[in-house]
Amino acid sequence: LVLKLRIGGDEPITLKNVELLSYRHEVDFRNATVIRRLRFRDRRGRETTLSSKRFVSMADMHQAALKWTITAENWSGPVEVISALDARVINQGVARYRELEGRHLHPVESRTPCPDTISLIAQTRQSRIYVAEAVRTRVYGDTGELDVRRGLYRMEDYAHQTLGFDLQQGQSIHVEKLVSFYTSHDQAINEPLANAEKAVGRFGTFDEAFDRHQHAWDELWDDCDILVPNDDRVQFLLRFHASHVLQTCSPHTADLDVGVPARGLNGEAYRGHIFWDELYVYPFLNFRLPKITRGLLMYRYRRLDEARTLAHEAGYRGAMYPWQSGSDGKEETQIVHLNPRSGLWEPDLSQNQRHVSAAIFYNIWHYIQATGDTDFLLGQGAEMMMEIARFWSSLAHFNPQRDRYEIHGVMGPDEFHEKYPDSDEPGLHNNAYTNVMVAWISDVAGKLLDMLPERRRRSLCERIDISDQEVETWKLMSHKMYVPFHADGVISQFEGWENLEELDWDAYRQEYGNIQRLDRILRAEGKEPDRYKLSKQADTVLLFYLFRQDELKQIFERLGYSYTPEILRKTVAYYDARTSHGSTLSFVAYAGIFSETDLTTSWERYMVALESDVGDVQGGTTAEGIHMGVMSGTLDLVQRSYVGEVIRDGVLYFNPKAMGHLRGLTFPMRFRGLLIKVTFEDGRVRVSAEVDSLNRSVKVGVGDQVREIRSGESYAFDL
Amino acid sequence: LVLKLRIGGDEPITLKNVELLSYRHEVDFRNATVIRRLRFRDRRGRETTLSSKRFVSMADMHQAALKWTITAENWSGPVEVISALDARVINQGVARYRELEGRHLHPVESRTPCPDTISLIAQTRQSRIYVAEAVRTRVYGDTGELDVRRGLYRMEDYAHQTLGFDLQQGQSIHVEKLVSFYTSHDQAINEPLANAEKAVGRFGTFDEAFDRHQHAWDELWDDCDILVPNDDRVQFLLRFHASHVLQTCSPHTADLDVGVPARGLNGEAYRGHIFWDELYVYPFLNFRLPKITRGLLMYRYRRLDEARTLAHEAGYRGAMYPWQSGSDGKEETQIVHLNPRSGLWEPDLSQNQRHVSAAIFYNIWHYIQATGDTDFLLGQGAEMMMEIARFWSSLAHFNPQRDRYEIHGVMGPDEFHEKYPDSDEPGLHNNAYTNVMVAWISDVAGKLLDMLPERRRRSLCERIDISDQEVETWKLMSHKMYVPFHADGVISQFEGWENLEELDWDAYRQEYGNIQRLDRILRAEGKEPDRYKLSKQADTVLLFYLFRQDELKQIFERLGYSYTPEILRKTVAYYDARTSHGSTLSFVAYAGIFSETDLTTSWERYMVALESDVGDVQGGTTAEGIHMGVMSGTLDLVQRSYVGEVIRDGVLYFNPKAMGHLRGLTFPMRFRGLLIKVTFEDGRVRVSAEVDSLNRSVKVGVGDQVREIRSGESYAFDL
Repeated sequence: LVLKLRIGGDEPITLKNVELLSYRHEVDFRNATVIRRLRFRDRRGRETTLSSKRFVSMADMHQAALKWTITAENWSGPVEVISALDARVINQGVARYRELEGRHLHPVESRTPCPDTISLIAQTRQSRIYVAEAVRTRVYGDTGELDVRRGLYRMEDYAHQTLGFDLQQGQSIHVEKLVSFYTSHDQAINEPLANAEKAVGRFGTFDEAFDRHQHAWDELWDDCDILVPNDDRVQFLLRFHASHVLQTCSPHTADLDVGVPARGLNGEAYRGHIFWDELYVYPFLNFRLPKITRGLLMYRYRRLDEARTLAHEAGYRGAMYPWQSGSDGKEETQIVHLNPRSGLWEPDLSQNQRHVSAAIFYNIWHYIQATGDTDFLLGQGAEMMMEIARFWSSLAHFNPQRDRYEIHGVMGPDEFHEKYPDSDEPGLHNNAYTNVMVAWISDVAGKLLDMLPERRRRSLCERIDISDQEVETWKLMSHKMYVPFHADGVISQFEGWENLEELDWDAYRQEYGNIQRLDRILRAEGKEPDRYKLSKQADTVLLFYLFRQDELKQIFERLGYSYTPEILRKTVAYYDARTSHGSTLSFVAYAGIFSETDLTTSWERYMVALESDVGDVQGGTTAEGIHMGVMSGTLDLVQRSYVGEVIRDGVLYFNPKAMGHLRGLTFPMRFRGLLIKVTFEDGRVRVSAEVDSLNRSVKVGVGDQVREIRSGESYAFDL
Repeated sequence: LVLKLRIGGDEPITLKNVELLSYRHEVDFRNATVIRRLRFRDRRGRETTLSSKRFVSMADMHQAALKWTITAENWSGPVEVISALDARVINQGVARYRELEGRHLHPVESRTPCPDTISLIAQTRQSRIYVAEAVRTRVYGDTGELDVRRGLYRMEDYAHQTLGFDLQQGQSIHVEKLVSFYTSHDQAINEPLANAEKAVGRFGTFDEAFDRHQHAWDELWDDCDILVPNDDRVQFLLRFHASHVLQTCSPHTADLDVGVPARGLNGEAYRGHIFWDELYVYPFLNFRLPKITRGLLMYRYRRLDEARTLAHEAGYRGAMYPWQSGSDGKEETQIVHLNPRSGLWEPDLSQNQRHVSAAIFYNIWHYIQATGDTDFLLGQGAEMMMEIARFWSSLAHFNPQRDRYEIHGVMGPDEFHEKYPDSDEPGLHNNAYTNVMVAWISDVAGKLLDMLPERRRRSLCERIDISDQEVETWKLMSHKMYVPFHADGVISQFEGWENLEELDWDAYRQEYGNIQRLDRILRAEGKEPDRYKLSKQADTVLLFYLFRQDELKQIFERLGYSYTPEILRKTVAYYDARTSHGSTLSFVAYAGIFSETDLTTSWERYMVALESDVGDVQGGTTAEGIHMGVMSGTLDLVQRSYVGEVIRDGVLYFNPKAMGHLRGLTFPMRFRGLLIKVTFEDGRVRVSAEVDSLNRSVKVGVGDQVREIRSGESYAFDL
């Protein structure tokens, strides 16, 4: 939204050629609006106040707007505003990518559909998507629109209008630059450029558009605002995170066939690739804006065929989702990785993180639990879940010596371990996180067919060719997956971990300070991270985050392993001491895990996660894009860990921990269609359901008390 | 799917340069597959048998395939098959449009991604949509794929491969031409051409693809097949119609942002425009494949803003949907019309058929009744319904003399009356069909807000600015719309109809034979159809089709008019005698209406409607495209009129007429999520619900008996 100001024929004002008298930069999270107010003195001594306000509309996904208010404080004279459209933009937000091609647009044409409007269309270079924008710029004084002198400069990939007018000392005028944008992927259009021009012509005033924008955000906050009345900093950070999450995953993106980009929509790091961050993003949205989650699941469903092909080409059955993917869902993970510390390109085996498919299965199941969306279960969910379970069963092999199913050749979430030291074979044997997930997946998949209506079951089995024998295998795997343990009962991250070398953590901390990216440090020293007992982030312990204690007990006991609070405590302590937290997601996971055993430590980790993006704790990565997983994870942690939400047999249970900073916590939740408000008072949990003429009800439980709460009702559970 | 055959270096075989020994052309409605088998003798006396089978896949919307089997009956020698891709196609299916531009594609490029594949991408000229196809052609003998001599010819907008091989006398070979197609509107793609090439490379064999295609059709038939065991002709025609309806509106089109084209996907008549045919198309789909209806309703929702603008620009509030529309939902109705009889371009005022917005309101309400889809009601349905009700209330004006609301300046469905004779003003006063629809709409809209959950109601009212006063106006209109009557109690098609001239129908029938398009006949004679008491199709009487008797009684009595069976009888007889049935939709409507009063006449009309497309009763219009409204209408009539389906207070009622030809009728229905099978035996109606582990139930009623039928249960109602 380039807008420039020239006063009296001089060069355009920039922060460099004026003396700043005051400056204030404000971001209003309530509506994701940027407001700046500056007063400056230019080289000729003229003092001017310039306020600007800009937003991308949450009410209309084709609108954005920018408004300037210019006040001539001590001068009178001619002014020129330059309002431009520029298709020469390049991606250069990430320093280490700058040698890669940053230009992604081909110019197509620019136009001047009417005197106050310019428009431009360009095309993405590889995917042939058209992107069109039209801009209408007008100047308003106290008595309405000013008659300005308009000039035009236009190339294929750039256009601007100049708007000249005279300003009197003390006078304020407004410049409104309104933008409509369309792409060739938009629905209900004729052609992107023509529709952008038509839309901008119908655009009202800035203030009208802003009111609609604000109203749309108000509706989102009604669904999403977590109130923490007794800790202003936490309150601020939760809203900061919710605002960013909703800018990336909004009702507008829900229908756009987009996934969850790891670094938001602005961040260029990871080049917009889709990883597994949705594991952290869905839970917050499932209970608030489930249409968004459903849109994101449909994004995965549309790429199911590609995941099937990926499995097939690797010699497996079912669906193997890629670790990193983009537009058409094929594997996009890099196979070499630049180590900025050594300047070397090193091999990258991270695509063996097959656990992304387990995360997708988990997400589908939890979406259905929260929403009761049987349409999705029958239409797409069951098919994806079956194909993922099938993939795991084809990847696993039965080891008759152990009488167990094993999985070899995969990585867990810990990216420091890509293979065994000195081995040529990628991946590891029996990653515990993966194997336990697969045991759980096999159990759910084995029961899933019985949940489907008769005809749907038959047609699905025919279509994707599921046999009774296959279902039997899943049931068997839920009883016989192998889980490695250390001699002292700690769960092994993978088989053979015990044989790795201990690292001298203190020495490395002393030498390098921040050792989050210990992999790069070690490699730069010529050492293989694979050789050591170290984790980049929560791996085994992630199980304690994703499953409740009683669920894990059930999974382990079904497998014939004992599961005790002692195992949890020892395993967490063991890995916490050996984790560099090279991904801030690790703080989210550990905060959740410690909420079971040590609330003080849990809260410390939680605050690190909460402060990580606003404080850019990794030293520069925030500028490359916010961390969607962490932001969403901190929002989810409130419900998942601190108030202990869990759904069992269609009942939404709460099991709140001591509230501390969260005293008085209140949040809205949408459970199986009905909106409820949950408030944590001293010794009580109050649940109120909104008035709903559809006469719906939900079942809510605290401890042994289970109540059916009908629309319009409220109930307080004693703790 | 151009495929040509050359034998021994001669010119390609066509039907013109060979002697046909036998020929059979078959369309298998079960799977929309075209099968041809021909045996011919060429100029050199060689006899050859050629069988072909082709389909567009119902399993994968990007696939089509063609298979040839060639048998050399009495010769041996070299053969060449030419397999082409042609982007030079033009629209020329409708003779009277041939002077209009028929070329809609710009060439972009063609490629040869691998030896057995050619591919091509073109772009639509106005909407900039890319269309890409890739074709893989292989030849198979008894022992597998033949090694053929391949040649290539390639231009920007046309490419073909030649496949040369030798054939022995008595030998049969198969040619498989497999096609993948993508457009730039497709989701989950990278770029259409590359994805088409990738997909065709993964395409299995013709037979595998056909199996999946057949299986997808089997699933559709499970949901849609109406069984009429005692009348083979009716059985045949119902399946013929269902097959065509499902080819046009399928699970694939549901997500494609497409509307219901009046003439199917192949028909070029009306240039693909969207009219009001969905009024006839939805009811059959609502009870069988409601996801399709929902997709079609979303098509309208995405164009709600355009309908708002259309209302606004015409000086009204709310949403005025256009009579004819296309891609971006703006009004596309022609303003002149070519009379093929006179060769003259005559003015066309048909865009004043504002009743299309009433049809959309009716469709939303009935979709929600059939499905119980509250998500759609809350998300989009209520908003559209409110905006349509608002449009009608802004178009209506209160006449204090009559103490009634009136609507001027609109046309009813009868297109012969565009205005009053000698008047310059378009439209008519108080079209009864429109005014009664508006009375009903106002009643439903007035109650709708109370149905919404509190927060949704508040936010919707704020967003589209609905006041209590506006709701009061709707309630008032439901009591005070004006309906014109003739002196003898017949409902007037519009105010002033009684003053029009009677036409000498016998004389015109005698002179012209077919007088369906009486408007063209009269205009060619220099007479205005506006001057006469004549209707092109059901207009006033359509009310008797769309509403049940008790509903109409309620609507009329709320308006303070009496409503008796006598009014129905007299009104139907009056208009039937003055209707040319210039649209075959009129036979559908009259068949439904007469089912109330005269089953014999009803059945006669029904048979005309059933036979109309297969017999091309309008003499040539079927070749320009099937009639979607009629085909769907005949399917719906079975449930709507002959078994008297109606939903009241969430109960699905049946009130079957004497069954006659329909004895033993059985059909599947999906009501509020649960699949039921309904069978009409002598004196009984049996309803069976499918086994469904979700433990759902529906309420079904016959007469005074209402039963809750749970999944897995069956109940027989006595009649």
